[in-house]
Amino acid sequence: MKSVKIVKIGGNIVDKPEALQNFLENFHKLEGPKILIHGGGAIASKLSKDLGIEVKMHNGRRITDIETLKLVTMVYAGLINKQIVAALQQIGCMAVGLSGADGNSVPATKRAPNPIDWGFVGDVEPEKINAGFLETLLDAGYTPVFCAITHDSNGSLLNTNADTMASSLARALSVKYSTSLVYCFEKDGVLADPDDDNSVIPLITRESYRELLEKGMIIGGMIPKLDNAFAALEYGVEQVFIKHADNLLCNKETLLKL
Amino acid sequence: MKSVKIVKIGGNIVDKPEALQNFLENFHKLEGPKILIHGGGAIASKLSKDLGIEVKMHNGRRITDIETLKLVTMVYAGLINKQIVAALQQIGCMAVGLSGADGNSVPATKRAPNPIDWGFVGDVEPEKINAGFLETLLDAGYTPVFCAITHDSNGSLLNTNADTMASSLARALSVKYSTSLVYCFEKDGVLADPDDDNSVIPLITRESYRELLEKGMIIGGMIPKLDNAFAALEYGVEQVFIKHADNLLCNKETLLKL
Repeated sequence: MKSVKIVKIGGNIVDKPEALQNFLENFHKLEGPKILIHGGGAIASKLSKDLGIEVKMHNGRRITDIETLKLVTMVYAGLINKQIVAALQQIGCMAVGLSGADGNSVPATKRAPNPIDWGFVGDVEPEKINAGFLETLLDAGYTPVFCAITHDSNGSLLNTNADTMASSLARALSVKYSTSLVYCFEKDGVLADPDDDNSVIPLITRESYRELLEKGMIIGGMIPKLDNAFAALEYGVEQVFIKHADNLLCNKETLLKL
Repeated sequence: MKSVKIVKIGGNIVDKPEALQNFLENFHKLEGPKILIHGGGAIASKLSKDLGIEVKMHNGRRITDIETLKLVTMVYAGLINKQIVAALQQIGCMAVGLSGADGNSVPATKRAPNPIDWGFVGDVEPEKINAGFLETLLDAGYTPVFCAITHDSNGSLLNTNADTMASSLARALSVKYSTSLVYCFEKDGVLADPDDDNSVIPLITRESYRELLEKGMIIGGMIPKLDNAFAALEYGVEQVFIKHADNLLCNKETLLKL
């Protein structure tokens, strides 16, 4: 069976040119077929402010109205995606920058407007992902680099959660590939004590995850991230790693397995 | 020999949603492997104004400073490219949006800063185009859709003339494909009398082009367009058409042949 590594980086690293460059050099060193998914970063918010586009929020989460959709399409699919591709090409990585509209790679469904209208936000249906397109690119030696913009197959682009995009791609590819999913973020892994960076939990299984949740040791944004990860594992992804973007090549990390 | 059609549209049609939709439907009806190259349009200038980025010009041509480069990357590679891809996907065309950095498809060289420093402007070297990448996509049934952003293989993106990008791609592909190049613009073809839209010259050869130039019948922006076209023909492109974007499927056009 062929293998593929799917690596997701967040906006926090996209915003730091030196850390990003260091990450991309490590990413290029990963052997075998691989895919990068990148989040947004602060550029979209800054541009939004400069253009006087009102940022609408609900419970701390952004609502994607039509002007915001245009803005994130420009920033994520345009500026950030192509800058990452150019930086990877410079070091010899045959990157191909993509949105989910390209090659119909990641079709999504606009989220229902009830109870809250999130606007142009897309939920991915992993079973509709065009894995054949990605296989064509991977088999020919190319490295897909995705921003988290998808489309509704009805002409509209959609803003999508980058973590979900990564887990959906991993899940779709696990039919033909032995798939590893790597979530990079600003910590060394899942911490037993949020105040102690040295308390990385090396392994979390479905069972120990339940226990950690019951003890209240997993909180906030880490819950949807781990839920996403375990959903991917249940659909055939072999392993999920949660680690710091600086540590891509070393094994300071949390490994998730069923 | 395989065949491919390379179609270039300008910013004027990108700015008109209905005309663009009509064009894309016709483009989708073109049989066989094909590639679309799109220009910019007024959105970049509007955004530039909204963001207070000073537009620097020399002899009526824009200088691409670093802020302008970021802006055109956002607008051309992001917003316009992905909107066109989503619109093509809606009607069943398996479009893949690309810049010249993606798959190292179109490497370019930053123009020398003397006598005029045009900034981040790239000149394409057709012999360095990664035709193999395009062949991989075309053979698998995908339709590449290019914006006119390239890269210098040294980490920097570059703003490139869309006409030159189209002729360079046509020239590079003509090694393995019987290649037709179609330039769409706002007239029905090359006009014998600029004031008479019915005076389309149906055929221009290298020899008749020389005569038309001597008689002063070809002027302004049409000269670099035709120079580009004849250069492509001399490097193996089979035929070049110049026509209105509305007429993609009918033969109201100027055909250029050696």
